[in-house]
Amino acid sequence: MQNPRADVWHRHPADVERQLRGAVAAGNVVTLAGGVPADELFPSVQLDEAMASVMRDDGAAALQYGWPEGHDRLREHIVAWMAAEGVEVSPEAVLVTSGAQQGLHLLGRLLVPEGAPLAVETPTYASALQAFDLRQPAWRAVPRTASGLDLGCLADAFERGGARVLYLVATGHNPTGGVLTEGERLEVLRLAERHDAWVIDDDAYGSIHFARCGRGASGAPGTPKRPSPLRAFGRHLDRIVHLGSFSKVLAPGLRIGFIAGPASLIREATHLKQALDLETATLTQRVLARWLDVHPLDQHIARCITVYQRRRDVLLDAIHATFPHARREPPDGGFSLLLHLPDRLDARALLPEAIRAGMAFEPADPYFVHGGEPSAVRLSFSNVDEYGIRLAIHRLAGVVERAKVG
Amino acid sequence: MQNPRADVWHRHPADVERQLRGAVAAGNVVTLAGGVPADELFPSVQLDEAMASVMRDDGAAALQYGWPEGHDRLREHIVAWMAAEGVEVSPEAVLVTSGAQQGLHLLGRLLVPEGAPLAVETPTYASALQAFDLRQPAWRAVPRTASGLDLGCLADAFERGGARVLYLVATGHNPTGGVLTEGERLEVLRLAERHDAWVIDDDAYGSIHFARCGRGASGAPGTPKRPSPLRAFGRHLDRIVHLGSFSKVLAPGLRIGFIAGPASLIREATHLKQALDLETATLTQRVLARWLDVHPLDQHIARCITVYQRRRDVLLDAIHATFPHARREPPDGGFSLLLHLPDRLDARALLPEAIRAGMAFEPADPYFVHGGEPSAVRLSFSNVDEYGIRLAIHRLAGVVERAKVG
Repeated sequence: MQNPRADVWHRHPADVERQLRGAVAAGNVVTLAGGVPADELFPSVQLDEAMASVMRDDGAAALQYGWPEGHDRLREHIVAWMAAEGVEVSPEAVLVTSGAQQGLHLLGRLLVPEGAPLAVETPTYASALQAFDLRQPAWRAVPRTASGLDLGCLADAFERGGARVLYLVATGHNPTGGVLTEGERLEVLRLAERHDAWVIDDDAYGSIHFARCGRGASGAPGTPKRPSPLRAFGRHLDRIVHLGSFSKVLAPGLRIGFIAGPASLIREATHLKQALDLETATLTQRVLARWLDVHPLDQHIARCITVYQRRRDVLLDAIHATFPHARREPPDGGFSLLLHLPDRLDARALLPEAIRAGMAFEPADPYFVHGGEPSAVRLSFSNVDEYGIRLAIHRLAGVVERAKVG
Repeated sequence: MQNPRADVWHRHPADVERQLRGAVAAGNVVTLAGGVPADELFPSVQLDEAMASVMRDDGAAALQYGWPEGHDRLREHIVAWMAAEGVEVSPEAVLVTSGAQQGLHLLGRLLVPEGAPLAVETPTYASALQAFDLRQPAWRAVPRTASGLDLGCLADAFERGGARVLYLVATGHNPTGGVLTEGERLEVLRLAERHDAWVIDDDAYGSIHFARCGRGASGAPGTPKRPSPLRAFGRHLDRIVHLGSFSKVLAPGLRIGFIAGPASLIREATHLKQALDLETATLTQRVLARWLDVHPLDQHIARCITVYQRRRDVLLDAIHATFPHARREPPDGGFSLLLHLPDRLDARALLPEAIRAGMAFEPADPYFVHGGEPSAVRLSFSNVDEYGIRLAIHRLAGVVERAKVG
């Protein structure tokens, strides 16, 4: 394909998408392709109880239209959650969105004039690039790995690249799992402030934060807290937007995210949201708010972290044993890591073989702003048990071996 | 205000919005302002049962990510519903949307180039104008009343106005409650076909269709069926998009609508939707599909029609007795009618008085494409019982009387 970006936006080509969907549908394929939360961590019974309670207590309001800014009680819970993370906002500065994805679309439309420069990490969350693609921005790509962000390049994106908006995933970076240090955060904010630039801090994975490999569980008491979101640092507050989500920490099926930021921007975003989908479903908002009334979110998240961290460790061990020389970095958060296949093997070409062998990975090229990383794959450890992870890497090893020979 | 359209899109000014919200919050104000379904018609217990059944039977899939096109079982139900209305589509030609509003946004973005001519009825659904405002179209306004559409003006909008897209609400027109005849529908399609124009048929209120005043309930057996949606007429099918919703016939709190049309357009819309909000909430889609598995939608709709038609009749009687000379037309469908206040009284100016007197209406100016209808009000009869409707009109009469004197 000559120009893979011309008409596909930052998406997989149709054949890759078909293969990945087929892998999910097939019963015998272990898929490390989807960055989705673990099925067994959903509090289904509790959510069903919350639904019954909403139907009993809220009456018709649970099924009626609401207001575009979102359900008041839910916004209060969001304020409390953010306060616990060190971020102070008022309920009026919170807009409930139809998933964090809608937040990305709203912010792209409001902050990025069509064709304007936009600074993003590369690689980064492919669906964020898809949302911003609608503005046809002039990309200013800032290299990011699990171990850090290229701050010199970021300065350049502002100074010479003219970017006045930066989108980044500071914690639990997708796909690398990287977590920026406090020093890096301060430097990002200093640079943005100097150029009067907006910072969109995508914190969808923010709470899924691990101890460094072999240093114990971050979710367990006494272990280091996650680094605070950017809005916690108290500077340049009129230009920092926090993007949050309940999809990774609770259940994506509720489709509830939020943005929090300067009140005037949130007002504009609320009006725009009204034109896009009127409001987020009243019912799921109320079910979520009721669940949060009863269950401490932080305890649930701590249980999730324990599971995800163990899976991360198993995946790293399996890779270490199987592909000792392949390029990869250990993730400190999130659901996935980035691996470069040995011998510069082409991920898309290898995918059908891998699926035939009973495992699936995600070719990571769409995560790179300008593409051109055919050997990169994203491996998600979040929704596969430990046995499945080992089995998948074992199967991948066979596929890679045969490809080298062939 | 010099130019009410410059920065407000087709919305109420902030003070009017504040007053209308206040009226809803106040316990002692009977509001005819919101076009929302009747609280008492929501099948809350059945939906709670559907939720319990989904949680029991669907397992984690109910809370996990789904696919952007929507839940397969729900799309099958939509196909069946449409078939009963005379419209044949395949499940692949249906996209589940986050309410019909998202359908409007998707179609505006895909079919209307920025600044291009767009034919719409005037008055029409204000939030549709808001969605299309994002394309900054050159409006081609086609006058519409409860008794019909100005077909000469429509021909002109295509011929001299250069419009290649028409948005209309053929059945249960908002705000007038008008229902186009079969003859008008055929003429609309003939004109659109001749100019190779797209037709967006907003059928959100399509199933809420009444017998003409005093001729019995349309929902009851033996009474005339609703006129078929435009896609049922079998011509020009590659340019007709059907917009549907479960908000009026079941519950807006689920926030589920859909679009059905040519497969290639639906594919494009699906990709675009992915960039906007990934997908509509898995949970509400499954709850709705399960409810539809068990409960015949047509029987539920028939019950709704009986209630709404009686309320429509009560409102018309009250208006007839109170404002015999005021301009208005009886609605044949939908949730509302349009009334012009006597003596060209200004609706916005009168609203605070009306609320103080214990009733609220909606100033209808934002429903007119070019505004300039200060005396028009939208009165919704859908969510007020018969006593409330009479009381509200009685209170409005007092306010109008005092305004004439003053």
